[in-house]
Amino acid sequence: MLSVALEEARAGLAEGGVPVGAALFGADGRLLGRGRNRRVQDGDPSAHGETSAFRAAGRLRGYGDTTMVTTLSPCWYCSGLIRQFGIGAVLIGEARTFEGGHAWLAEHGVRVTVMDDPACVALMRDFVAARPDLWFEDIGR
Amino acid sequence: MLSVALEEARAGLAEGGVPVGAALFGADGRLLGRGRNRRVQDGDPSAHGETSAFRAAGRLRGYGDTTMVTTLSPCWYCSGLIRQFGIGAVLIGEARTFEGGHAWLAEHGVRVTVMDDPACVALMRDFVAARPDLWFEDIGR
Repeated sequence: MLSVALEEARAGLAEGGVPVGAALFGADGRLLGRGRNRRVQDGDPSAHGETSAFRAAGRLRGYGDTTMVTTLSPCWYCSGLIRQFGIGAVLIGEARTFEGGHAWLAEHGVRVTVMDDPACVALMRDFVAARPDLWFEDIGR
Repeated sequence: MLSVALEEARAGLAEGGVPVGAALFGADGRLLGRGRNRRVQDGDPSAHGETSAFRAAGRLRGYGDTTMVTTLSPCWYCSGLIRQFGIGAVLIGEARTFEGGHAWLAEHGVRVTVMDDPACVALMRDFVAARPDLWFEDIGR
């Protein structure tokens, strides 16, 4: 599942964007939606990886059996999305280059897995080194 | 400032949507962006009032001197947005029909004002009574 999110992140990087990708999967492993950060591509600061994947999945009733897969620990905005909609599980590529709200999600009953995936770490580490301006804009710092 | 958010909420109701509206203002009282919940109108579950107003304001550097005005206490998703981007203040029409994360925001340094506005209360109370299915879908319950 992480490979779908990583493909999205890499596509975002190739477009000059923030390389965070995500995908929402159903209980049966079916892909419900996938997306990436589109701040640069669409001039849209509200389009984070997770929110894009959630949006792409369309209107659903009940997220308890879904899994949000993301290349990077979800920021507070995306963590809030996960908590509000009761997404049951979050699979995170890495939390080394940025730590968002995943511990808070775990405290509130979300099943959280951090993979510490080297490809995800390298992607973000290189991006933050190359474009700190864009990265800090994207997380409001 | 609340009247702008309330106009958005009422426009959403007239469109058959969830009547929550919001607006982002700068330090000088200038309107930066306004919007409303667009779940029904756009089939977009990621478009809450606050995220729509934030999106409409476009890419900005620094939100510390901005105020998010919303007709209803922000859900966890929208509270996460406010915290992540460091929006300095939140002005809330009412928190009587739904209580989101505004106390959490106050704990984390956001200046929170709840107006308990009768028009905002009536709008949501009538909507929840008329369309509980849509309302509970919108907050993931």
